[in-house]
Amino acid sequence: MTLIKNAAGRMVPAEVNEKPVIPFRGVGKYIPDGRRFAPRIYSCASYPSDGNKLVPTLKEALLKCGIRDGMTISTHHHFRNGDLIANQVFDICKELGINDLVFFPSALFPCHEHLIQYLEDGTIHHIEGSMNGPVGKFCSQGKMKGQGVLRSHGGRYQAIQDGEVEIDIAIIGAAAADMFGNANGLNGKSASGGLGFALADSQYADKVIVVTDNLVPFPCVPWQIQGNYVDCTVVMDKVGIPEQIVSGTTQITKSPDRLLLAEMTARFCEVTGIIHDGFSFQAGAGGTALSVGIYFSEIMRRLGIKSRFARGGSNKYLVSMLEEGLIDYILDGQTFDLDGVKSMARNPNHIMTSPFTSYNYHGKGNFANLVDVCILGATEVDVNFNANVVTHSDGYLLHGIGGWQNCLFAKTVILPIPLFRDRIPVVLDEVTTICGPGELIDVIVTERGIAINPLRTDLIDKVKGSDLPIVSIEQLKDMAEKICGKPAKAHFGEKIVAVIKWVDGTVIDAARQVIV
Amino acid sequence: MTLIKNAAGRMVPAEVNEKPVIPFRGVGKYIPDGRRFAPRIYSCASYPSDGNKLVPTLKEALLKCGIRDGMTISTHHHFRNGDLIANQVFDICKELGINDLVFFPSALFPCHEHLIQYLEDGTIHHIEGSMNGPVGKFCSQGKMKGQGVLRSHGGRYQAIQDGEVEIDIAIIGAAAADMFGNANGLNGKSASGGLGFALADSQYADKVIVVTDNLVPFPCVPWQIQGNYVDCTVVMDKVGIPEQIVSGTTQITKSPDRLLLAEMTARFCEVTGIIHDGFSFQAGAGGTALSVGIYFSEIMRRLGIKSRFARGGSNKYLVSMLEEGLIDYILDGQTFDLDGVKSMARNPNHIMTSPFTSYNYHGKGNFANLVDVCILGATEVDVNFNANVVTHSDGYLLHGIGGWQNCLFAKTVILPIPLFRDRIPVVLDEVTTICGPGELIDVIVTERGIAINPLRTDLIDKVKGSDLPIVSIEQLKDMAEKICGKPAKAHFGEKIVAVIKWVDGTVIDAARQVIV
Repeated sequence: MTLIKNAAGRMVPAEVNEKPVIPFRGVGKYIPDGRRFAPRIYSCASYPSDGNKLVPTLKEALLKCGIRDGMTISTHHHFRNGDLIANQVFDICKELGINDLVFFPSALFPCHEHLIQYLEDGTIHHIEGSMNGPVGKFCSQGKMKGQGVLRSHGGRYQAIQDGEVEIDIAIIGAAAADMFGNANGLNGKSASGGLGFALADSQYADKVIVVTDNLVPFPCVPWQIQGNYVDCTVVMDKVGIPEQIVSGTTQITKSPDRLLLAEMTARFCEVTGIIHDGFSFQAGAGGTALSVGIYFSEIMRRLGIKSRFARGGSNKYLVSMLEEGLIDYILDGQTFDLDGVKSMARNPNHIMTSPFTSYNYHGKGNFANLVDVCILGATEVDVNFNANVVTHSDGYLLHGIGGWQNCLFAKTVILPIPLFRDRIPVVLDEVTTICGPGELIDVIVTERGIAINPLRTDLIDKVKGSDLPIVSIEQLKDMAEKICGKPAKAHFGEKIVAVIKWVDGTVIDAARQVIV
Repeated sequence: MTLIKNAAGRMVPAEVNEKPVIPFRGVGKYIPDGRRFAPRIYSCASYPSDGNKLVPTLKEALLKCGIRDGMTISTHHHFRNGDLIANQVFDICKELGINDLVFFPSALFPCHEHLIQYLEDGTIHHIEGSMNGPVGKFCSQGKMKGQGVLRSHGGRYQAIQDGEVEIDIAIIGAAAADMFGNANGLNGKSASGGLGFALADSQYADKVIVVTDNLVPFPCVPWQIQGNYVDCTVVMDKVGIPEQIVSGTTQITKSPDRLLLAEMTARFCEVTGIIHDGFSFQAGAGGTALSVGIYFSEIMRRLGIKSRFARGGSNKYLVSMLEEGLIDYILDGQTFDLDGVKSMARNPNHIMTSPFTSYNYHGKGNFANLVDVCILGATEVDVNFNANVVTHSDGYLLHGIGGWQNCLFAKTVILPIPLFRDRIPVVLDEVTTICGPGELIDVIVTERGIAINPLRTDLIDKVKGSDLPIVSIEQLKDMAEKICGKPAKAHFGEKIVAVIKWVDGTVIDAARQVIV
């Protein structure tokens, strides 16, 4: 396998799953010159004249869509750990004796451990998507036939739009749908909020199947997914487990350490004037990031100002800020709890966004650029401010990228992180896997000090004279090492088990087999 | 020029504007085997990092978008006769000395007579779009350099999607927009309602300019046009004349003859059971068609039933039906008056549709198919139920197709028309121009009798025993001729001045130069 050193200094393969890839060239350096993927043209003459696309079972729908060996099959993750669709799809494929499928979910959750058997028996060749939990471990152990490809939410849209991934059949679970295929995630027992992560799939997949447990008379409105892209509608008893839609990462933290990080982050934003009338912010899915919103609220109330918009992942905290009038709009990529779902369904200022509007780097701009401050998590940060979100220091792939890479384009990016976890330093000489280049990461907030990226001289000026505990990133690393000792490096083999794509489709890093 | 006899029996050219075209093959007979048009891939790296795409003037925006000879320029018609954009665009092109442009509006209105000078002096080579009013007359006189191409609203979406027309620069006027280019037609002094007719332009044009007289802070919601497709935003004093948005065709008729037609149409729908609980309907933009809604309301109230959805063009009558609860949803392609605009802005059951959802024949179905009854106008109908909407019997192109062809796919299509106009018969042996094949037209309602297409044996059975004045189409023609005499044929030359496309992009008829 040919390896190339990319602009992040990482050795990455020239080919992934036998297709050539482009190594990372630096932020904003790769300018594409091709054309968007062009899906096949279909005709109304080939679809039922009464608009009724109902097919009795998912199996029949897959057969009608021509399921066969080697196809690329996609699903979305709006049901999070309550998803009941993806596993069924591959149970059916197994039953039909179909092999070598590429699975292209918008994210994976622990419930998808069920699929490991199909990675083992050849039903699924490889997964392009977040390598979370058990599937990530399986991949890191070098057991997957093909290579994993990890992309951000925006990178996934970009890959579909640009034709890097051609989806043969997309299966879109929906809380409500009509016979024509119009669908949304708002109304019904399996309500999950917006269906933005399935947008690209609906637009570009060759065949699209909508699956619902709540068939409504035409028209199903709002049509987050437009029936004009849909081939079949399938009704089943249950498409998701509502209680599991709220995953662990959407609970606000109760840890005093993490609340401290959240408070320090908010104070930093106040001192530097990042919090100003009409500002915008996004907090990620982590417990600390969510808590930041609470502190932001207090500051805004005290200063008598409001935010023009907040990006969701929405939850009850963000919804209450909207309802209190502290925020004009929530621009929401995924609803993390049922308060978020209800708010999106009834509040016209709680707007569904998609990876196209928010994150697609191969568009004419995107919303991520317009956010004043974005608060995110990380598993590791290094002294060059490079950060990692997909592996831990033991080398195992255990997390997806989500919107994390895309959010790095906010005007200020802050990572509130503990200095160490389980006595393993989080601030290091070099991250295990680079997911985000240091030039886009502005501030590291830890319980023992705040490090500002030297590139951000404006922020450094603004904190002068404040009582904020400003330190250098090297100081943070030294403190971590003093307490925990120099961290042991993970043991890797040569085999590349997965690559990490940058937002423009280039390869920013590779993950290698973990040797125990 | 090679002429071919198409499946409608018309002689049509094999080439239009030097590009090959496909002759009409029959309804549902042409199945495309290509791929959608693939626009160029752009990168966020090439756009302002703060999302600010404001350009001071329309001229600078056109220059920034690389305006040059031979380009295809598009605009939309949501401002109807109050449009202030299209004329300015070509004033600028003239000033810049640019020639041979193709103008591709979604429709033309009398206010666009201003453009005739540019057709004369070579600034504009030809227009592909509705040949209304003065421009239509100009075209019919054989004075346009290129050939006109008339398409339905759905056909326009299809042509863009399929790459038959490649738009170089789309200019989209909007009542509200933000610096990023998100735009809608709902809020501001030039409110025009939905911007659905500009959707395809935004999705597929190489460059997109949004022009507004109401710049709002990001985010402009709802974003009927997504800023992610937009290159430049231009603010000007005034983009449209609100009073002119309501055109003549959107006033309810006061003519007793036309009210009779409307009443007869409604009675026909009641007798045949077309009006039933949960039914759907669409009335076109004509005065008679609009009046039908009033009679439908009375019938629904009397029977204690409601309609699941009505298709707009919306107006105050349809809005009052929605508010009264007689209709669950308005699915609205264009708001014909300010009551419609306001309702779309505030009523979540008044939904904007686009030519993609409603009319695109090269999708996986469309909404037009799902409508129970559609009431439309026509300039001529013949004894084979073929109908014409673009020319009068004098041969002049004076009307656009609008959504008319697309609506023919409703389950029942009724044309309430006078038997004659100005002593010229409307029911003829053969229409001057075929816009819709007779097999899709079910019922002709005239003041002297109702003719049912013999293909609709079900409707013929249902009216048996009723007091409806059922006659044959030949009887209608004979009555018209008895009163008006055999109509004189228009005098045409050999020169083909325009073609009429069918919903699938094939050529259903050609319009020839009128010899006076």
